[in-house]
Amino acid sequence: MPTSLESKLILSAPFKWMGDAKTGFLKILDQRELPQKETHLECRAVKEAAFAIKTLAVRGAPAIGVAAAFGCVLGAQRGKTKEAIEELKASRPTAVNLFWALNRIRKLSNHDPETVLQEARKIEQYEKDNCLAIGRHGLALLKNKSRAMTICNTGALCTGGIGTAVAPFFLAHAEGRPIQVYALETRPLLQGARLTAWELSRAGIDVTLICDGAAAHTIREKKIEIVIAGADRIAANGDSANKVGTYALALAAHYHKVPFYIAAPSSSFDLATPSGDQITIEERSKEEVTRWKNTPAAPDNISVFNPAFDVTPNNLIAGIITEKGLIHPPYKETIAKILK
Amino acid sequence: MPTSLESKLILSAPFKWMGDAKTGFLKILDQRELPQKETHLECRAVKEAAFAIKTLAVRGAPAIGVAAAFGCVLGAQRGKTKEAIEELKASRPTAVNLFWALNRIRKLSNHDPETVLQEARKIEQYEKDNCLAIGRHGLALLKNKSRAMTICNTGALCTGGIGTAVAPFFLAHAEGRPIQVYALETRPLLQGARLTAWELSRAGIDVTLICDGAAAHTIREKKIEIVIAGADRIAANGDSANKVGTYALALAAHYHKVPFYIAAPSSSFDLATPSGDQITIEERSKEEVTRWKNTPAAPDNISVFNPAFDVTPNNLIAGIITEKGLIHPPYKETIAKILK
Repeated sequence: MPTSLESKLILSAPFKWMGDAKTGFLKILDQRELPQKETHLECRAVKEAAFAIKTLAVRGAPAIGVAAAFGCVLGAQRGKTKEAIEELKASRPTAVNLFWALNRIRKLSNHDPETVLQEARKIEQYEKDNCLAIGRHGLALLKNKSRAMTICNTGALCTGGIGTAVAPFFLAHAEGRPIQVYALETRPLLQGARLTAWELSRAGIDVTLICDGAAAHTIREKKIEIVIAGADRIAANGDSANKVGTYALALAAHYHKVPFYIAAPSSSFDLATPSGDQITIEERSKEEVTRWKNTPAAPDNISVFNPAFDVTPNNLIAGIITEKGLIHPPYKETIAKILK
Repeated sequence: MPTSLESKLILSAPFKWMGDAKTGFLKILDQRELPQKETHLECRAVKEAAFAIKTLAVRGAPAIGVAAAFGCVLGAQRGKTKEAIEELKASRPTAVNLFWALNRIRKLSNHDPETVLQEARKIEQYEKDNCLAIGRHGLALLKNKSRAMTICNTGALCTGGIGTAVAPFFLAHAEGRPIQVYALETRPLLQGARLTAWELSRAGIDVTLICDGAAAHTIREKKIEIVIAGADRIAANGDSANKVGTYALALAAHYHKVPFYIAAPSSSFDLATPSGDQITIEERSKEEVTRWKNTPAAPDNISVFNPAFDVTPNNLIAGIITEKGLIHPPYKETIAKILK
């Protein structure tokens, strides 16, 4: 079933291994240029793959891990897989999926290009399978619901598969069910506008872009029936950290009695973090807010508070969609159970 | 008291009449160029003043009314005040303050430049007095509160006085009280980033810019104590229409038990509109969302829902600050009473 459904979808691949293991190369879609230009980087050396990850030409936790695994093949071609692992590991210092993927490559008994490429393809397939499983569990929630809302980018571009929070929308579309998605533009970096709107419309899904501040009004006016967001990290009690704006979106859904779901692979759970209070929120540069590309949008000398993420408390979350199934409160118990 | 306090403030004047009535001209700060450039338009003919209003070089209901009244002086200089009124009336077809100000000029028994200029100055003073009165009533709410939040632009630039929602912040600052303002950037047109952040920081007020989606997180993290927003139109039951994003902000304040106030002159009440359900929300062009100046931020061919305003229901509003005093629920009664 997964394969036949997937074949009906137009997915925007973030990368592709071109050619055979010994002489091939890694082609990466440069997401920084989207949606205006579809340019690709041809990585023929490890440092080019590391640079693509570092500069966010490829982004999104699962996609980074897979891209790094393919990057190792470039090292293997020169008999330098271990050096490749070290170089790629340094490209994004806090990405869990990156370390996990590189660790799988490191543990291989044989580091010839064919073996490394085979393992990279397995990692890619693993992420794709996770996406499909999340999509299937989420699809059950859509039932007669067709008016949905999401934030940030959680699609093919950041997973290589059908994504996480948008995976149910991809599957609903593949099944020919009516589905209408409102995508928040997601300031300051506009991943919703640049990436989600682009990849969903490219896949033929009915998508409408809105400003983040318009979400509450849109939920009311357009009678939104379900909201699904991704998560970067989920605490043991279900509190979920995701792109800033998610918390405000969950509050708006809550007030309108619209179910708000988190969709994320089980690798996003962090049992060592009891609740959202213990999650440190990264603050990013003020220029992300005061300029759009090179165009100023605010006085340059202004103070800016630019948190990259926020935490949605568990009481606002109707359920968490993982590849292992859908879980409901009490999250402390259901999360511990599903991770066993 | 108003005058002495106002003299302590650095206000960013949206316009100024230069010279005498017979040979003078209207100088308008071109707000479209802010915050990067402080350029002024010198309007020496009625059509130049009308063009400045039409193209949003000057904006904000009270400021438009006053600018139009000064524009009439340019007509009076040529003995063509009535023609000037007609031309200026057509510049912004739905601005109530514009019609009100032009009507005051029309009703003058004498249309010589001195008389028209005198009336324009009276209208200007009336708006300034309203702002000060709103500021004073709002100041009482601040008491020991110093961490505030606001949305869009409601300051000197759009009123000529100390504004509406930000008026209490201006007065607190003039009195030497600590006041810290978080300003939402207010997508899509970024009036908060371009105008509010600019004019508050220029006045020496501690202002921090945030993305609209970060408001809920900021209320929690920065322990915001009060939220004040303006209003474009207030229904008889207190439901308030304001810039899109206000409703989401009110929901976030509500959830955190932070009082949310509306500040607006009594001319914003519309007793003919029973509730927010009867307020038609203007939808604006998709390009406001998909491009920032000339820089694309989303695919050009994407569907966009771009409501310019939203309605905050009365149950989320702790009080409405008007020049006639602060009113509380039940709004149907208190609004009718204050308008008598």
